[in-house]
Amino acid sequence: MKKSIGAKVFALPSPVWVVGTYGENNTPNIMTAAWAGICCSVPPCVAVSLVKARASYGNIMKRKAFTISIPSSKQATEADYAGLVSGTKVDKFTTANLTAVKSEFVDAPYVEEFPLILECRLKQTVEIGLHTQFIGEIVDIKADEAVLNEKGIPTLEKVLPFVYSTTDLAYYHIGEQLGQAHSIGMKFKI
Amino acid sequence: MKKSIGAKVFALPSPVWVVGTYGENNTPNIMTAAWAGICCSVPPCVAVSLVKARASYGNIMKRKAFTISIPSSKQATEADYAGLVSGTKVDKFTTANLTAVKSEFVDAPYVEEFPLILECRLKQTVEIGLHTQFIGEIVDIKADEAVLNEKGIPTLEKVLPFVYSTTDLAYYHIGEQLGQAHSIGMKFKI
Repeated sequence: MKKSIGAKVFALPSPVWVVGTYGENNTPNIMTAAWAGICCSVPPCVAVSLVKARASYGNIMKRKAFTISIPSSKQATEADYAGLVSGTKVDKFTTANLTAVKSEFVDAPYVEEFPLILECRLKQTVEIGLHTQFIGEIVDIKADEAVLNEKGIPTLEKVLPFVYSTTDLAYYHIGEQLGQAHSIGMKFKI
Repeated sequence: MKKSIGAKVFALPSPVWVVGTYGENNTPNIMTAAWAGICCSVPPCVAVSLVKARASYGNIMKRKAFTISIPSSKQATEADYAGLVSGTKVDKFTTANLTAVKSEFVDAPYVEEFPLILECRLKQTVEIGLHTQFIGEIVDIKADEAVLNEKGIPTLEKVLPFVYSTTDLAYYHIGEQLGQAHSIGMKFKI
């Protein structure tokens, strides 16, 4: 018997993704988003939801582009900071000692220090409620050489991303491998 | 200098959520989704992307409802299984020894054995590409008493959800707390 606890966003876990955009005068901005996820395989797309008050909201609308810079758990402080203050008031790259690099394929900057980058072209916007969802087509992935395995794939154990819990309002490390997907469930297959 | 590795869904990490629906004759079905995330705070909403070939796709279209049952890492085998086979061919609840419970508020079943449940009413569908995104308004959260803290909140350390890596095609445990969100980044605030 389960306990009913009302209509809340208690969906665990959430990713911690840093959205990079250009504002006026090509000022680079970042903000941290957790209302996000992959939303399509073909074309490869991610969805990120933002509120209108965010500087990033207007930036994406104007430039039709954004990046996702995925921080490692060693960069949680920088990522948390990017979600705490508004890009309309401060240059967060400078304050957090991060380097803005212009994307190769889209009109948005990414965070050089973070290991895994998604360059995204705005594909669709979806009005939901308080949040607007931006669906971005991933046009390129960029990764530090150090996080690639022998096949050239960025592995989770090297990228070391972390997650956000909407119930605890805290970040958590990702730990050891639990099992191979599309494989461990075969024991039930009849 | 980062290495370009092309347009891929290498966005880390993804949640592992089990989508519950009713098919014809009220047959309960589950399928595991990782192309998913929170997408709005007000109203509280989650987005889950499915391909048209899935039994769950037609079920959600007809019933305008679905649940998300969030498995703990102890239930990774059952969750993986629910993603491996089609609900058009087999009753996955029976095969994986899981119990279907009718939701209190929406026309969809959830998995009794999983610790955290979202009852969702279909709000919008978004055609993206190969995947269609289903945006569900969370009308109630249900949780096992055992995963609640003293304030009645389901904590990540008790729910013990796990993540999926689209680069490694593997599941990973979530480990220890890294820091408090909206707090650790204050050190950069000026």
